[in-house]
Amino acid sequence: MSKNIAIIGAGSWGTALSVLLAKSGHSVKMWSIFKEEVEMINKVREHIDKLPGVLIPNGVKATDDVEEAIDNTHLLVMVVPSHTVRTNAKEISKYVKDGTIVVSCSKGIEEGTGLRLSEIIKQEIPQCEIVALSGPSHAEEVGKDVPTAVVAASENIKAAEYVQDIFMSPKFRVYTNSDIIGVELGGALKNSIALCAGISDGLGFGDNTKAALMTRGITEITRLGVSMGARRETFAGLAGIGDLIVTCTSMHSRNRRAGILIGQGKSLKEAVDEVKMVVEGVVTTKAAYELAMKKDVVMPITTEAYNVLFNGKNAKQAVVDLMMRDKRNEVEIMDENAWL
Amino acid sequence: MSKNIAIIGAGSWGTALSVLLAKSGHSVKMWSIFKEEVEMINKVREHIDKLPGVLIPNGVKATDDVEEAIDNTHLLVMVVPSHTVRTNAKEISKYVKDGTIVVSCSKGIEEGTGLRLSEIIKQEIPQCEIVALSGPSHAEEVGKDVPTAVVAASENIKAAEYVQDIFMSPKFRVYTNSDIIGVELGGALKNSIALCAGISDGLGFGDNTKAALMTRGITEITRLGVSMGARRETFAGLAGIGDLIVTCTSMHSRNRRAGILIGQGKSLKEAVDEVKMVVEGVVTTKAAYELAMKKDVVMPITTEAYNVLFNGKNAKQAVVDLMMRDKRNEVEIMDENAWL
Repeated sequence: MSKNIAIIGAGSWGTALSVLLAKSGHSVKMWSIFKEEVEMINKVREHIDKLPGVLIPNGVKATDDVEEAIDNTHLLVMVVPSHTVRTNAKEISKYVKDGTIVVSCSKGIEEGTGLRLSEIIKQEIPQCEIVALSGPSHAEEVGKDVPTAVVAASENIKAAEYVQDIFMSPKFRVYTNSDIIGVELGGALKNSIALCAGISDGLGFGDNTKAALMTRGITEITRLGVSMGARRETFAGLAGIGDLIVTCTSMHSRNRRAGILIGQGKSLKEAVDEVKMVVEGVVTTKAAYELAMKKDVVMPITTEAYNVLFNGKNAKQAVVDLMMRDKRNEVEIMDENAWL
Repeated sequence: MSKNIAIIGAGSWGTALSVLLAKSGHSVKMWSIFKEEVEMINKVREHIDKLPGVLIPNGVKATDDVEEAIDNTHLLVMVVPSHTVRTNAKEISKYVKDGTIVVSCSKGIEEGTGLRLSEIIKQEIPQCEIVALSGPSHAEEVGKDVPTAVVAASENIKAAEYVQDIFMSPKFRVYTNSDIIGVELGGALKNSIALCAGISDGLGFGDNTKAALMTRGITEITRLGVSMGARRETFAGLAGIGDLIVTCTSMHSRNRRAGILIGQGKSLKEAVDEVKMVVEGVVTTKAAYELAMKKDVVMPITTEAYNVLFNGKNAKQAVVDLMMRDKRNEVEIMDENAWL
């Protein structure tokens, strides 16, 4: 059944989702603040900068008028850069009707507050129901109909199922999950581990090292997540290890690329300048480190990454220090903090 | 403290482990049935076919006399092809002293019986204590001192800790785990998912698809493992997702290479002929499918892989059928079998 859907943000992921939804027969209005972007989408039917080579169907209409975009919508999809979620949510709040389902598609943790993005949206749009959509999903591939599987998570499982119904297609499989805390933390914190995986690659280490970093990385993310109310199983799923895999093995990932440069000996500033875009993993590593301190959770990889990024620690020494830690059991169920 | 260690089998992994142990100061005797192999190791100090470019230290001595290899040993390491574990264990059994710790380093499930390799060894060498060593560890990288992390698993945690003490080095980190069932099943069953990941690559699908297959693949392996007495957490660890990651992302993997050929349209026989070596994933897929039937566990990916390999099902259709299954929740804790 066709729905009216508003998409806030016209970057690569927003555009890919608009294409996906329009192909399923939904009527999509996409909001962008940039007039040229709106023009390009409506006239050229291709987002040449952000998602080149993908035809945008006629079912997608772009607008720079946020009220028009949201008017009469059945579903609101937020796909803006994570550090702009609060300002965007605040701006659109007055147009959002009571009980509207908002799908949060960005990944990150707010600097300073340590809040998840759904918490920010709930603060700014308290009248909405919130669902987080996450998982291993490069926009370039979704735009080209590559089979993809993701998770729609909400404390309100009916809302998650509504989103599942709307997004699911023969090329886009959606699972539901009631653990929105775990799904959001997985999507955000994986950027920190991707940065570490990049550093390992930059140092010239191998597949063994990277697989170990990823596995032990998700282990410590899980530990932090559980201390924040998430469920352990979520991190073994699509929004946890699944997203981590796609990020750590792809050259598309800015986090991994920045890590490679740091591993090769560049400073954080040099690496970020060279990548030229926002490197979420840098902010996330700081946020994860601070959360770990606050929650008293041991996160050896995150701690070493923090020291490399912010305290000038030599990256090779950080790996040596990780390898030479005390002998451990892999799993310690009974004592969460011994599980390192 | 230096130990006497016997290694049964002189393939790439056996050789890499002998180098690792000798570098840590242990005295290693490596047994091979092939006289030329024994000569090569003792004279050339390099296994030119199996581990080229890696110097074998003088602390390693090869022999074709199994009694001599095992005599006076503190630890017995078995690293033979998985389908030869039973015959090899039977052959050496009479030389093994009561209470000797045997480290099983092969990965697989016995065809027909569905037994794990440690179960086979215990049947043939009932007087031993058994530890399984597993995790993301390409022999080529371990031979070259690339940082690597693995798991030593045993019901007898003291035995696992003994193995941890002996193998651990600045470049080789060993965790212990009491769940030997999970560690062995993870190492064996991952080959089936690696074959599927290869098929996906061969069909021309993307990183999203592969990450989804790996994540949902480990989910169904976990489900089977739990039904066989393993612990869920183990599959989120080094011998589960860690080993799966290294196998699915490496061109070293024969399973992945065979899968790529099948995805490109070759028959199972053509693919196996072209890869020219044992493709464990083929046997494992059959074993996993039979175990799933016996245990009444739903394994959609394994089932599709089985149909592609043994019932001539079109690979592309198999992916379509996986994508179009009923809508699901990602995690169903309460009902193991609903967790698909």
